[in-house]
Amino acid sequence: MPVRLDARSPDFETRFAALLNDKRETSVDVSTAVAAILAEVRARGDTAVVEYTNRFDRVNAPNLAALKVTAAEIDAAEAACSPDLLAALDVAAARIADFHARQSPTDLRYTDALGVELGMLWRPVAAAGLYVPGGLASYPSSVLMNALPAKVAGVERIVMVVPAPDGVLNPLVLAAAKRAGVTEIYKIGGAQAVAALAYGTETIAPVDKIVGPGNAYVAAAKRAVFGQVGIDSIAGPSEILVVSDADSPPEWIAADLLSQAEHDSSAQSILITDDAAFADAVAAAVEKLLETLPRREIAAASWQAHGAIILVESFDAALPIIDCIAAEHLELAVTDPHALAAKIRNAGAIFLGRHTPEAMGDYIAGPNHVLPTARSARFSSGLGVLDFMKRTTLVGCSPASLQALGPSVLALAEAEGLQAHALSVSIRLPEASR
Amino acid sequence: MPVRLDARSPDFETRFAALLNDKRETSVDVSTAVAAILAEVRARGDTAVVEYTNRFDRVNAPNLAALKVTAAEIDAAEAACSPDLLAALDVAAARIADFHARQSPTDLRYTDALGVELGMLWRPVAAAGLYVPGGLASYPSSVLMNALPAKVAGVERIVMVVPAPDGVLNPLVLAAAKRAGVTEIYKIGGAQAVAALAYGTETIAPVDKIVGPGNAYVAAAKRAVFGQVGIDSIAGPSEILVVSDADSPPEWIAADLLSQAEHDSSAQSILITDDAAFADAVAAAVEKLLETLPRREIAAASWQAHGAIILVESFDAALPIIDCIAAEHLELAVTDPHALAAKIRNAGAIFLGRHTPEAMGDYIAGPNHVLPTARSARFSSGLGVLDFMKRTTLVGCSPASLQALGPSVLALAEAEGLQAHALSVSIRLPEASR
Repeated sequence: MPVRLDARSPDFETRFAALLNDKRETSVDVSTAVAAILAEVRARGDTAVVEYTNRFDRVNAPNLAALKVTAAEIDAAEAACSPDLLAALDVAAARIADFHARQSPTDLRYTDALGVELGMLWRPVAAAGLYVPGGLASYPSSVLMNALPAKVAGVERIVMVVPAPDGVLNPLVLAAAKRAGVTEIYKIGGAQAVAALAYGTETIAPVDKIVGPGNAYVAAAKRAVFGQVGIDSIAGPSEILVVSDADSPPEWIAADLLSQAEHDSSAQSILITDDAAFADAVAAAVEKLLETLPRREIAAASWQAHGAIILVESFDAALPIIDCIAAEHLELAVTDPHALAAKIRNAGAIFLGRHTPEAMGDYIAGPNHVLPTARSARFSSGLGVLDFMKRTTLVGCSPASLQALGPSVLALAEAEGLQAHALSVSIRLPEASR
Repeated sequence: MPVRLDARSPDFETRFAALLNDKRETSVDVSTAVAAILAEVRARGDTAVVEYTNRFDRVNAPNLAALKVTAAEIDAAEAACSPDLLAALDVAAARIADFHARQSPTDLRYTDALGVELGMLWRPVAAAGLYVPGGLASYPSSVLMNALPAKVAGVERIVMVVPAPDGVLNPLVLAAAKRAGVTEIYKIGGAQAVAALAYGTETIAPVDKIVGPGNAYVAAAKRAVFGQVGIDSIAGPSEILVVSDADSPPEWIAADLLSQAEHDSSAQSILITDDAAFADAVAAAVEKLLETLPRREIAAASWQAHGAIILVESFDAALPIIDCIAAEHLELAVTDPHALAAKIRNAGAIFLGRHTPEAMGDYIAGPNHVLPTARSARFSSGLGVLDFMKRTTLVGCSPASLQALGPSVLALAEAEGLQAHALSVSIRLPEASR
């Protein structure tokens, strides 16, 4: 049974703290194995990547070029997909691209009153790598969500790696890659694929940034190559917080809680409501829906181990609890979701009103589904166009503005004991003003 | 002697690769010691912080409250600073705040043609921690550069920690903190200060993000608490790339190269020029200026071990070299710096023209001096307002827009084998359209 908390009970703070500290991730230390793979790929390039791929994915590639997906393979994969599914992918890709285009930043240029030219230029990274898991977790939606922001940012090379265990690849993943502007695809995975993207090999030129989800080996490899390249955040198990009043049909809310729980037995689904009878009705609906769910074992394990129902006196009283949970996904299934949303500081994404199940955002609404987990929405954001761009600031002094501001720089540099800093300014000032 | 490379010589690629791989950081593994300190502070709070502080900083504080800097201490520190220096700090603070205010993002709200409400809200983090080193590297400019973006972002609590070895604190650092909107200051440092900010103690409430430079212990502690809180990037040794034609006075350029070299023997200064005689003149000027420089030992060590002069045929031919170096600081001491700047992809900050020594940006121009090092300008940016804010995306469906887009979600969710996702949508659709 999921835990039941009442915000008005005297033991609430203790029990809420225990819920927040609920350790859902089982961390396996694979850093030694990963370090060895990274070192091998760095030293032996293509050869090492092919050796690991043949071994781990049970294939028999003669070289890395043979693992590069051809245009013909992509076309054949697309032809194997149902037209309905391709149409749905098209709708999703267009909506995601449209939303992300509105995130594109604008450059800043101005000259201040002293004549100092100032500015900030946004530029895309030159090349991005996208990791896509193989097997069951090979999701086309994830390809769209990771690659389209890079494309919108103007990244010229978007390199996808996806393992094809026993040579099998999900054709929808290739169809999604085609729609998302991916420019190169290799059938490789694991730490060896991350190493190839970060260090480069004879066949694969290195990238500047690597994004996308993966297993413990992939996560450890991304951590290890960080600095050599940029990485996205390392995602933890997914989570949803549904805030609902008693006017939502309990089955709707139960389905939303289960849509998160079915991802992974480590996932977390939490309901906050102001009505005890509604809480009971949702809990009962969860049990009922679980019976018919194909992934009921996973969903039931998640709901029983990590699920929670929190009863509050009012939704205003729930605000500090909501901000403290800082949920990846926050559904506001209440009569006036806008009023509540305006008061919330921390959430990865907010779903407004009873007709917006999180699944709409997972696939098609437009915003990214790669969102901050494990309370990190307190300080970080979902994936977006800015993750594939970087700023360069500009300063340009005229002789006059250098002379106007120079003396302040001399004072500060000398106070900090940095005489060459001072010298670099004073040497440019006319003799009289030094 | 710094290395001399010629972009036209046949061995250039090999020698340039060696320069890029020049390992300037001496990494000391302090992670075990740091893990112990973090665990102690997490378990014993104030008591542990005070014990470590008394031991490492050679003080004798009875409790953590005694290490909190009072308003009277700040006023006394300010009174101890020269009026000229305070005026210079005021100019710097005003200019930095003005530039950063122009980085503030705007929210996004719109309703698309189907009636889906979409948006993106930017919110400041609730509390930020700022680490300031003690002793010689206790720079007031660094306080302004780290705290002002948080203040401009709207962060309500800005908590500064700065060790006071033997009880000594740089008064200018407190004066800078006052100007930068810091709301709490504690005289603590090292891994224990980072732990106090991340986990909180009885006296110090936890923060959501920690920024600021520090020694190996501080860097390791920041790495370890990442996830619990956000952190800025871990800065490597500083670096400058000066691109100059022969019309710049060689002494000016020599001073600029030394202003970076004086920071640290691991710092790196590189000159790119299209004139061999000018290269010789700058090299000679460096040697001459070194003679009179107070920090000549550090600067000479940096210049000799890591300095480089690269001769190119033209500045257009230098572009791939410049982008590959992806310098933290890039000076364009050429006749038309704008034309060159427009073609550059990777640099933390660009200084335009002969009258803009990097020191102007270090102290007073306005843009941040916390910039990406070690080639990370390929994928990351200097510190700014966005580092203290995060985005929440919004999606709101009406019954009609849910019905319009629902079928595409059903197709994709079922293709991914996520039936509860599909159910959360279909359960909301009218019977006829499921």
